[in-house]
Amino acid sequence: MKDLFDHPIDRRGTGSAKWDLMDKLFGVPLDGGLAMWTADSDYPTAPCVLDAVRGQIDLGIFGYFSDVGLYTGAVQWWMKERHGWHIEQDWIVTTHGLGNGVAMCLDVYTQPGDSVVIFSPVYHEFAKKIRRADRVVTECPLKREGDRYELDLEDAQRRLTGNETMLIWCSPQNPSGRVWTAEELRAVAAFAARNGMVLLSDEVHHDLVYPGETFVPMAVAAPEVMDRLVTLTAASKTFNLAGMRVGSLTISDPAMRAAMQARLEALDSKPNSLGLMMTAAAYSPEGAVWVDAQVAHLNGNRAVFDAAVNAIPGLRSMPLQATYLAWVDFSGTGMIFDEFNARVRDIAKIAASPGPDFGAGGESFLRFNLAAPRATIEAAGARLKRAFADLQ
Amino acid sequence: MKDLFDHPIDRRGTGSAKWDLMDKLFGVPLDGGLAMWTADSDYPTAPCVLDAVRGQIDLGIFGYFSDVGLYTGAVQWWMKERHGWHIEQDWIVTTHGLGNGVAMCLDVYTQPGDSVVIFSPVYHEFAKKIRRADRVVTECPLKREGDRYELDLEDAQRRLTGNETMLIWCSPQNPSGRVWTAEELRAVAAFAARNGMVLLSDEVHHDLVYPGETFVPMAVAAPEVMDRLVTLTAASKTFNLAGMRVGSLTISDPAMRAAMQARLEALDSKPNSLGLMMTAAAYSPEGAVWVDAQVAHLNGNRAVFDAAVNAIPGLRSMPLQATYLAWVDFSGTGMIFDEFNARVRDIAKIAASPGPDFGAGGESFLRFNLAAPRATIEAAGARLKRAFADLQ
Repeated sequence: MKDLFDHPIDRRGTGSAKWDLMDKLFGVPLDGGLAMWTADSDYPTAPCVLDAVRGQIDLGIFGYFSDVGLYTGAVQWWMKERHGWHIEQDWIVTTHGLGNGVAMCLDVYTQPGDSVVIFSPVYHEFAKKIRRADRVVTECPLKREGDRYELDLEDAQRRLTGNETMLIWCSPQNPSGRVWTAEELRAVAAFAARNGMVLLSDEVHHDLVYPGETFVPMAVAAPEVMDRLVTLTAASKTFNLAGMRVGSLTISDPAMRAAMQARLEALDSKPNSLGLMMTAAAYSPEGAVWVDAQVAHLNGNRAVFDAAVNAIPGLRSMPLQATYLAWVDFSGTGMIFDEFNARVRDIAKIAASPGPDFGAGGESFLRFNLAAPRATIEAAGARLKRAFADLQ
Repeated sequence: MKDLFDHPIDRRGTGSAKWDLMDKLFGVPLDGGLAMWTADSDYPTAPCVLDAVRGQIDLGIFGYFSDVGLYTGAVQWWMKERHGWHIEQDWIVTTHGLGNGVAMCLDVYTQPGDSVVIFSPVYHEFAKKIRRADRVVTECPLKREGDRYELDLEDAQRRLTGNETMLIWCSPQNPSGRVWTAEELRAVAAFAARNGMVLLSDEVHHDLVYPGETFVPMAVAAPEVMDRLVTLTAASKTFNLAGMRVGSLTISDPAMRAAMQARLEALDSKPNSLGLMMTAAAYSPEGAVWVDAQVAHLNGNRAVFDAAVNAIPGLRSMPLQATYLAWVDFSGTGMIFDEFNARVRDIAKIAASPGPDFGAGGESFLRFNLAAPRATIEAAGARLKRAFADLQ
């Protein structure tokens, strides 16, 4: 399956945000630049997904769609098969991707002016979405312990204002690639329950977990909080389908689910048929085999990337337990953000996600997307070495 | 091009709402039933649209999408080329289809408890969306004048409660297929302005206009109300893409547009990439040629259908100026709705849209979708003849 992930594809000019917005957003030229920021992949999705689209071309009709259990059945199968998580099909509420799912939860389960807890550094869109909805961010920093982040719930408890009604959790963690233990998940669930908060668990990276690590869904670790839990999943990262805008909220509590369904119905917010069919095709035995091959490819990528980065004095790539997002600490260079960022941008010509966007604790970091052919990762390593050659 | 529209396609079991929900919603069996209700087509979309999807399969990547003017440029070109309507690309705000567009306008431009004017009988989803949003319907009946509907704005003015903040207009009119004149459009615009209402003009059927009739966009007829006008369009009816969930709000007023964009951004409500690409491919010279062929096919269908229906004593199909939706009056039979509807359902085994759902004035009607191969239309005529054979 090697060629599935190593065949070079030129995405420039294809409407790819990652590539076609690189110059505008980062000042990295399309000609000669490497796009390693937003979280999609530079290799194709699984063949079984493409076959599903071919089937729709053969039919030729893209009319009103009635999911007759195809999509929800596939989601149910995947969660059980890959994550040991039993869900009922009618717990699944479909949104326009994960981001829309988070925004809808803010809309339905909180009020303007409410505070929402996040543990930083974390996926930058959480804070943006909270603020765009006129809610307030309560930022609780994770504790850096050597090469990984740990929870500090005593510190978090002290930071609460009493105005918090929701906690947004990220598992596996983006940007650090941390896989949380069942014990840690239970502690977070108890923290949410003790403080009367709705608990959103963003588990979108759950399939991309490296050998030796075990992902546990929040609903499996802490079934006692099912009455306040919404789990967010999507095939977008795993199968490179972010543009299709399909994601699931799994909500077992009937009242919470009814509130979300009523709001989505009032907005006539229905997902597109092809995205549902592609997701259904992805969540299959064929899709599972492909994901295993992808994880093996990414496991090689992170080894190549980390070896190159960690050989540069002052740079340190946090060891990933999951995700294709490398979180690189530049603090050992003694440079401020603007200085190391300028070197990555102007000398290495790499567009990477700025650490400060991920909140407190991200000031000395850049995040690099490793979902690309191996040759791209090797090139990135060589470019970074050159950009910081004077330190060697 | 005849075979493009007359090739029989069995949509049963393909996730088609029109077919696969026919038994559940209408009690018409999938085996032997004819689905003629919801507004999509039983023939394939244009070849140029399918080619666009094939191109994406070849790329294989469905990541985050950046519309670099491809979609908005195509919409702009189509409106100018086909409707003589000049719009700026940045006036276009994209939603998840037309229904979501109407719902978002209610959300952004009205408040809970506000009243919203509709002219009935009209597309049943308007009233449903108004009520789901906790707004109030102010129903103003159209005046039946022989074989068509006319405006009665004096009557409408008397029905206003003073609480109205929006008017939802349908042009060409669904379900009657009426094409409004520029003079009528100006009268509606003046009515909206005089009463301080935001004016939504649903123009989704604008491409399916029969020879001899000329559709005029509200923005062209009444540019003086651009500061309160939102025009809703989509390729969904014209190109059979309803399942792809892409529609446009064209909003030239900067403050109104900014309010909509802020709300959509807060909800992270972005359309899917394939739907945008398919729409862009549709709005092209090749797409235009295909639409002309489709209109010729539909023109034949309505002649066949009307001849069959009008030959049945007591039935009368309203002459269509536009749309593939035939509006059939059963009042001449002397039967109440339940009686003629039961004959259509149980004897003809046709699932048609119930007239009462379209509001006041629809009590004696059923709406039949004619977007199908000619053979389907002939079969429908024969079935209706049999169902009402005792009247002949």
